[in-house]
Amino acid sequence: MTDKNSVHGIEARGGVTAPEGFLAAGVSCGVRRKGLRDVGLLYTPSERTAAAAVYTTNVVKAAPVRVAREAVEAAEVRALVVNSGNANAATGERGLRDAYEMQRLAAEELGLAPRQVVVASTGVIGEYLPVDRVGSGIREAAASLSRDGRSFAEAILTTDTCTKEAVARVEIGGATVTVGGTAKGSGMIHPDMATMLAFITTDAAVERECLEATVRRAADRTFNRITVDGDTSTNDMVLLLANGVAANEPVTLGAPEYPVFYAAVEDVMRELARQIARDGEGATRLLEVVVEGAPDEGAAAALARSVAGSSLVKAAVFGEDANWGRVLCAMGYAGVGFDPESTRISFGPVEVFAAGAPVPHDVEAANAALAGDEVYITASVGEGPGAATAWGCDLTYEYVRINGDYRT
Amino acid sequence: MTDKNSVHGIEARGGVTAPEGFLAAGVSCGVRRKGLRDVGLLYTPSERTAAAAVYTTNVVKAAPVRVAREAVEAAEVRALVVNSGNANAATGERGLRDAYEMQRLAAEELGLAPRQVVVASTGVIGEYLPVDRVGSGIREAAASLSRDGRSFAEAILTTDTCTKEAVARVEIGGATVTVGGTAKGSGMIHPDMATMLAFITTDAAVERECLEATVRRAADRTFNRITVDGDTSTNDMVLLLANGVAANEPVTLGAPEYPVFYAAVEDVMRELARQIARDGEGATRLLEVVVEGAPDEGAAAALARSVAGSSLVKAAVFGEDANWGRVLCAMGYAGVGFDPESTRISFGPVEVFAAGAPVPHDVEAANAALAGDEVYITASVGEGPGAATAWGCDLTYEYVRINGDYRT
Repeated sequence: MTDKNSVHGIEARGGVTAPEGFLAAGVSCGVRRKGLRDVGLLYTPSERTAAAAVYTTNVVKAAPVRVAREAVEAAEVRALVVNSGNANAATGERGLRDAYEMQRLAAEELGLAPRQVVVASTGVIGEYLPVDRVGSGIREAAASLSRDGRSFAEAILTTDTCTKEAVARVEIGGATVTVGGTAKGSGMIHPDMATMLAFITTDAAVERECLEATVRRAADRTFNRITVDGDTSTNDMVLLLANGVAANEPVTLGAPEYPVFYAAVEDVMRELARQIARDGEGATRLLEVVVEGAPDEGAAAALARSVAGSSLVKAAVFGEDANWGRVLCAMGYAGVGFDPESTRISFGPVEVFAAGAPVPHDVEAANAALAGDEVYITASVGEGPGAATAWGCDLTYEYVRINGDYRT
Repeated sequence: MTDKNSVHGIEARGGVTAPEGFLAAGVSCGVRRKGLRDVGLLYTPSERTAAAAVYTTNVVKAAPVRVAREAVEAAEVRALVVNSGNANAATGERGLRDAYEMQRLAAEELGLAPRQVVVASTGVIGEYLPVDRVGSGIREAAASLSRDGRSFAEAILTTDTCTKEAVARVEIGGATVTVGGTAKGSGMIHPDMATMLAFITTDAAVERECLEATVRRAADRTFNRITVDGDTSTNDMVLLLANGVAANEPVTLGAPEYPVFYAAVEDVMRELARQIARDGEGATRLLEVVVEGAPDEGAAAALARSVAGSSLVKAAVFGEDANWGRVLCAMGYAGVGFDPESTRISFGPVEVFAAGAPVPHDVEAANAALAGDEVYITASVGEGPGAATAWGCDLTYEYVRINGDYRT
């Protein structure tokens, strides 16, 4: 269980191929260095598949994002092709041609029309895609599709240090339905939805309109609540595919089983979001910030994200310094009104601030609350019903090293 | 000359006491460690003095900010008392009483009413002010007021590595008028006006309404365009005092000499803003970002600030990596629409991106443009009249060390 509101068991292993009727593969074609996997393919034979996605909010959208959006809108999606190591962003007309070519090559190998293939890329911005190499990777991946999603999970990584996968299983109308997901971070992680790649699959049958509402709402409450460095990328996407293999009555927004389905999707996304935050570039700790008592969830989310995104808070977490002044200060510039006199702040179990003034406390105990793998900061800002959680990580020397050295 | 639009000579030495009729002092009373100066006093005997200020936008405002605002609104300001090492923020009712006590003690020493004294504090948040020590510092400072502003400039520093001062001289209606300023950074530097302390003095006679418009506009174009870490503080203030000792006809907004006066103030503030950015916590380089061709100045400023504030751009500058993709990406999430196809980006003299695609260039030369003390990134986003400059600094290991260790 990853959250007290969750009603489902979540497994942190097994990704996009955990639901029935999905095949995947990941191979190495030489875009990334050192023989790392860099081309992934995800495919379902089911003709009942529905797709929905949310995309980066960055004004500068990479070529693959445009091509992916067209494919999702064409409403016949059956596959995804993705490469890592090169974002195919800021590459002009040639980049757009390259993204279409990547789509065409994958469709050809899978016996699909190009519009049935979603395209994604992640990596360095501003370099042209080596289409020949990607093409040979696509051919190799198509030949090695299997029910094991691990190589696919590896193929989408960049500076990530580990794969990210999660699975949930629920009963819907007598059928067992599985939701699986695989994601990658790990820099440029920030709301809103300009953050990372996440691919979620389910064997449930789901109406398209319902699927669209689900991906938007769940992404907003999970991936849009993580921040690593405040930079939002040009390439990012959350794709949700439902192939209907479970043969349940298609889920609709008004159906009694919708909350169960929705919760399973949100649980998988939340688990992936936490894995991304924990693996933020250079991070040594997962930071979880809970804000309660706000007028509404949006206000609570803005306050929580401001704390999780503050460079000064993140550096203090790295230094195991329970510097609650920085927490209060970050809430103060979140763009949301609140009354410091009604605010309480705790590090783990140690309350440090209440009613506008410091609470005498054991500083060593408060610092110790920052010393573990997971750090919890809680702020109550009043008596309102709004609560939200945001996730981040500490700011470390290693973040600076990675991003000072990434390309050169 | 610090700017091509500047019509004035700017001297980087000499601060708040450069204009006639201002006295200052800075002493050590034991708030900061190691005998560093930590209490400053600024005073003018002139009863013609007008004052105007802008304050932090943070919802959490420190006690001294509230007290300062009351003093400025009372419109009889003649002095400023400031301490470093303790922000007297998030200290509740006791903090407010302490700020009033600090004001009262300074007024008593200077023979003024309390409302005539502006109060400022900077330093750690959430600890009570040691009022006894500050009081003894105020007495010592009052006894050592002089025409030399250097000790005052030192007394307002926290993690700054150097003092920040600037002076401009102009002719107004036959009188020579001097504008001088002193500021401190150096973390928590970010728009809007929740950034730092800056005290600007002039011996010009200026109508109060004109002074208020001047401080707002000039701060918006200078201090609100610098960013060190995106964190905006609880304490910050720009105070502009005009004591009228130059005996010119009082400057008004409609007066023909207003542009000359305004430009002198903006020049001093810009020079101080650049000094603050250059001395950002852990910084090794000043980053100057110019955006041109935007629809208006506001859009240009938003784009320039987004680039100057991007952790990924700042880490790339530290690493001397001319990674223009990060520049384009940061412009993309600035919240301002622009067309990447009409955008050009240069590092120093080296153009690296144009018309939506990379420009073939000498990568070594582009990287070399990032190797100096001052790094210039220029982006043209179209044919519009809007242009703006923002300043920042690189993100370094030292930033992480300072902020991981600051309090513990």
